[in-house]
Amino acid sequence: MIGGDAGGMSAASQARRRRSADDLSIVAFERGRFTSYSACGIPYWVGGLVEERDELIARTPAVFRDDFDIDVRTRHEVVDIDLDRREVIAVALDEGRREVREPFDQLVYATGAVPVHPHWAQEGISGVFGVQTLDDGDALHAWLQRDPKPARAVVVGGGYIGVEMAEAMINRGLAVTLVERGAQPMSTVDPDMGALVADKLRSLGIEVLSGRTVTGLGHDGGVVSAVHTAEGSIPADIVVLGLGIKPNTALARTAGLPLGPTGGIRVDLRMRVVGAPGVWAAGDCVESVHRVTGRPVHIALGTHANKQGRVAGINIGGGYATFPGVIGTAVTRVCDLEVARTGLLSKEAEAAGFAFVTASVESTNRAGYFPGADPMTVKLLAERGTGRLLGAQIVGRSEAAKRIDPLAVALWNKMTVEDMVGLDLGYAPPYAPVWDPVLIAARKAVEALGIH
Amino acid sequence: MIGGDAGGMSAASQARRRRSADDLSIVAFERGRFTSYSACGIPYWVGGLVEERDELIARTPAVFRDDFDIDVRTRHEVVDIDLDRREVIAVALDEGRREVREPFDQLVYATGAVPVHPHWAQEGISGVFGVQTLDDGDALHAWLQRDPKPARAVVVGGGYIGVEMAEAMINRGLAVTLVERGAQPMSTVDPDMGALVADKLRSLGIEVLSGRTVTGLGHDGGVVSAVHTAEGSIPADIVVLGLGIKPNTALARTAGLPLGPTGGIRVDLRMRVVGAPGVWAAGDCVESVHRVTGRPVHIALGTHANKQGRVAGINIGGGYATFPGVIGTAVTRVCDLEVARTGLLSKEAEAAGFAFVTASVESTNRAGYFPGADPMTVKLLAERGTGRLLGAQIVGRSEAAKRIDPLAVALWNKMTVEDMVGLDLGYAPPYAPVWDPVLIAARKAVEALGIH
Repeated sequence: MIGGDAGGMSAASQARRRRSADDLSIVAFERGRFTSYSACGIPYWVGGLVEERDELIARTPAVFRDDFDIDVRTRHEVVDIDLDRREVIAVALDEGRREVREPFDQLVYATGAVPVHPHWAQEGISGVFGVQTLDDGDALHAWLQRDPKPARAVVVGGGYIGVEMAEAMINRGLAVTLVERGAQPMSTVDPDMGALVADKLRSLGIEVLSGRTVTGLGHDGGVVSAVHTAEGSIPADIVVLGLGIKPNTALARTAGLPLGPTGGIRVDLRMRVVGAPGVWAAGDCVESVHRVTGRPVHIALGTHANKQGRVAGINIGGGYATFPGVIGTAVTRVCDLEVARTGLLSKEAEAAGFAFVTASVESTNRAGYFPGADPMTVKLLAERGTGRLLGAQIVGRSEAAKRIDPLAVALWNKMTVEDMVGLDLGYAPPYAPVWDPVLIAARKAVEALGIH
Repeated sequence: MIGGDAGGMSAASQARRRRSADDLSIVAFERGRFTSYSACGIPYWVGGLVEERDELIARTPAVFRDDFDIDVRTRHEVVDIDLDRREVIAVALDEGRREVREPFDQLVYATGAVPVHPHWAQEGISGVFGVQTLDDGDALHAWLQRDPKPARAVVVGGGYIGVEMAEAMINRGLAVTLVERGAQPMSTVDPDMGALVADKLRSLGIEVLSGRTVTGLGHDGGVVSAVHTAEGSIPADIVVLGLGIKPNTALARTAGLPLGPTGGIRVDLRMRVVGAPGVWAAGDCVESVHRVTGRPVHIALGTHANKQGRVAGINIGGGYATFPGVIGTAVTRVCDLEVARTGLLSKEAEAAGFAFVTASVESTNRAGYFPGADPMTVKLLAERGTGRLLGAQIVGRSEAAKRIDPLAVALWNKMTVEDMVGLDLGYAPPYAPVWDPVLIAARKAVEALGIH
């Protein structure tokens, strides 16, 4: 294994379940100090909702060693893969970069992703952080404990990580500015839905600056002091990069492993690297097939990494499993706002060439008369002609985000919005109006299609 | 329309949307005083969670008259249907049973259901209540205001209504005994899941007496004073009947409308009564097709009634719509316990002749480290050989019940548990572990099938 987080260690665990240590020796190299942790949980730890860093760790290296007979070597960076000699070359970071050569029969490449570092951030200025690994999070968390404590945070980029980190910083009492190049943050949903999120960010006291491109950083003795944009400078004691991530494929490229158009490693359904016998890949470093467009996409998400690792591990262990692709489901929380999507956004459906209608409805999570009934907006995209569901988005308060799940399953199964109206979903006043918001949206989409 | 609640008034509204008052005159007879109310909400109003009765009413007769041009006649009981002369005969209950004859071209039969009244309850003793209509709920609610206030409630029957009413009575400060003929209450889920509910009921202070058959009622001057069982008498100031309901078909039977094996009216996919041109039926009085067994079932639920009424109304209005059947999805709340099911229970799968495996998992609604993570048990039934999902049950605390929805959509689409493992469901730490409980259960079911 190269990489000791979700993809690699899921593969290792599954392979071990099927093949004993007598039969299969498993070595896992991990550059950082941690294994099998929830990177998605970092904003909540930084924000103080989760108290201890180690709560984010599902399984430590010791657990893998003791309970799974997996030889985990943390702080070991793999620097080369020799496919001909079937060995990896790693250096032990805490031992003066001592070189280690490890032969393999099967190799799992699971190096994850790296944050996009813009040119202006690559100047060796401290106080600038990505949030990709638990080591990243650890460094950021430590920076917040400095004396004097950082008081002004600038988050660059308004995607999931940017928005979640902006909220985390506000929760820690910092003044927060979110700088976004686009027209508004949260371009992971349609603009009308994203506007609801931008309003919420502002109501939290976060300064949202849209349409701004960062041009550089100011610093004071090597410590960040400002973020420069064409429209002026924003003072900053800490800068968080939320400019997206890209597959971590430097090593793969030098080893000659094939990369797809998204920059991720190309794998087949069983997670075998295409054209490289005995080499597998899983997690944020690979590209997947989007089941709606049929095209390759790179969607870095722990849930995919776990599934892909499981598939690779089952296959390495002698079983048979395939990874069926993704449909772009994602949920996030912005304070008390729940945001969810699945399938294609409007701009994505257009880019793919679909003709479609949209339908938006406002409803409530519970029966309107039931205590705690909160508003919820559901938007659907349905293909003209066929009526097939192409995408769905939800913004609401309580019990909203996971309502994307029945929509995701409907979309997965290529249901039409017409068929969806008949779905037998759970109904009781504490949990839904008699017509669930999801079904009301399907009805509206049917009307928009002009079917009846 | 015969019946002014969900089925009838959904049909009326949909027909009106498509055909104006010039084209189609709509008369709706309703025996009670209310239209379009949430019978499912009655326990929450009785229990004090919902403050006002009228909050349960979606649309009053006045709204239907003024906004929809629908002539709603409450307190009118239809006593006969003359299919040959194409007219219904109703009596005005508040006008000395004055007879009204109303001709029709199209008739919608939507009389709902009636509670099962056992022989021992049919003795004219007051203080004994079913909970089917809002008038029933109103009478029960009034009884609770008596002087002296009822202090001891006995609920007979441990299904949804029984359990919900037991909790409502406890919330109002009464001492509550739940008498159940079976081995435990909540036989709407498998015994292992129902045991969790029985434990919760007891922890609320409800006395649960299982395996008891009621033999009669004691009374004091015509007012109920006790419930007699073979094992002794239970004092009672109020008795609630939760013994199930049956389709209200007395009128249909005399008119010669066809009833199916479940006792419900037989309809086709468009909600036309079989063999009776121009007659439609919708709601708790009809039987539906269960999509898993292919057999007729009678499942009385507001969500089905609304859908069926909508279908009938679209068709009467000149459109085309069909009702696709049901899969038995149901959710309920017992204090802070959420209970959900879809598809077949074990006993139902056995009765239908399926060979199947079951898999149960305990997980959490959120990432384990996230504040508010609550335990949740998910149980799946999957067919041997095909691996097709046959049923699912969930018992948990927060954010558990509606997780039945993705399972319901998967089952609706005949997914196998193997395919379900790959589903792209929403993941973020506030909403799910990286493997959603639903997916963990699917994995366990795959293992139980011995697929890999």
